[in-house]
Amino acid sequence: MNKPTLFTCLSPALLHLYDLNQSVVVIIDVFRATSTICTALYNGAKAVVPVADVERCKQIGAEIGGITAGERDGKVIPGLQYGNSPAEYPRDFIEGKTLVLTTTNGTKLLHMALECGAADVVTGSFPNLSAVCDFLVKQNKNVILGCSAWKDRFNLEDTLFAGAVISSVKEHFTIHCDSSLMAENMYELHKDDMENFIQLTTHWHRLAAYGLQKDLQYCVTKDVANVLPLYKDGVLVVG
Amino acid sequence: MNKPTLFTCLSPALLHLYDLNQSVVVIIDVFRATSTICTALYNGAKAVVPVADVERCKQIGAEIGGITAGERDGKVIPGLQYGNSPAEYPRDFIEGKTLVLTTTNGTKLLHMALECGAADVVTGSFPNLSAVCDFLVKQNKNVILGCSAWKDRFNLEDTLFAGAVISSVKEHFTIHCDSSLMAENMYELHKDDMENFIQLTTHWHRLAAYGLQKDLQYCVTKDVANVLPLYKDGVLVVG
Repeated sequence: MNKPTLFTCLSPALLHLYDLNQSVVVIIDVFRATSTICTALYNGAKAVVPVADVERCKQIGAEIGGITAGERDGKVIPGLQYGNSPAEYPRDFIEGKTLVLTTTNGTKLLHMALECGAADVVTGSFPNLSAVCDFLVKQNKNVILGCSAWKDRFNLEDTLFAGAVISSVKEHFTIHCDSSLMAENMYELHKDDMENFIQLTTHWHRLAAYGLQKDLQYCVTKDVANVLPLYKDGVLVVG
Repeated sequence: MNKPTLFTCLSPALLHLYDLNQSVVVIIDVFRATSTICTALYNGAKAVVPVADVERCKQIGAEIGGITAGERDGKVIPGLQYGNSPAEYPRDFIEGKTLVLTTTNGTKLLHMALECGAADVVTGSFPNLSAVCDFLVKQNKNVILGCSAWKDRFNLEDTLFAGAVISSVKEHFTIHCDSSLMAENMYELHKDDMENFIQLTTHWHRLAAYGLQKDLQYCVTKDVANVLPLYKDGVLVVG
């Protein structure tokens, strides 16, 4: 029997090159949307609603009585209640609540994946690495690892997560894809020194300027919020 | 004094994210356009005219009495005279002649760079690595290393060449770019095993099926055709 295929897409601007139809698409936005999403769900959030813009965030938040959240330049967006830090969503705050989250790169890619006919859309980051890998192996469908990038530019943190997934699941897939080969190489090269290497990335420099170092180290820590956010009827719930 | 910047663009589909104005753009199409271009010029070709399509190739070839060349799927395109292999252009054949070359990925990127206001457009591959590096250091302008990719998909051979350039010139530039950091890492990881590693790439598999292994090994050999192809008034000449 032929194994399903796996491709890594390094930027939303390259997504049109891949066939998403009937595939599982993993949305990857390590710093910090997909790290925050799995953390909120792991800590008992009922659901996370990913929305593309601030007005829609406020509107849905008001309609369903959800927690509205989003940041620009490391600060909570005026009119929203919370930010985009996983540390803001401990169990004693988020349990039983719905988080309405607006982010730039990750949300955009998620909606693009849906429009392209993906069978399943899930979100991944280091805190839920194993949950993502287990799901991909179980589904036995073609996979696209979709890096959210930064304003369409390639970024290393999303690539390293793609590499971590590939390193774990590759026996189960047919992989003819230079992006995947590169991602796996980069992960193997840096997996034992992630905490230091990640400090060389451009996004680290951007966010560390806002004092978010602790947040960023959490985002590259494996399996500390190990649930699978699965997109279903407009919301992300534990799959 | 501030050093000029250097960015690596991994695909023509990402070129719009970079400011090319007044920059030096290095067009990279290792397998095999930019390897063939420097080889023809090194062996005494008067000029290489890069053209986007077959009809234009025939037309210009007829007008100037040039050698028309181009391949699709590893075969010479019907109506053209030669292919896209550097081995086809030894000195005793190409000296004093003009090569009119149509390629898919490299030529497209070259024309895009010109439209974006690049100050200088040059082509690079392993056979002319040092000539490219020397030029970049001397020019002291901002640099974009432009990978031609394959039908807009990321490829490793172009990335490895970008990494080789960065590894050599990085002291002279300000580099805040995850693509560049990755390219340099990948080059350092594989520089002593290039001949084998390159056989894992998708493009190798595509071209090796046509019996082009020897060609491909040549394309990753450093400084064997060490001239600088510089684009000027519609043609590439030795800079």
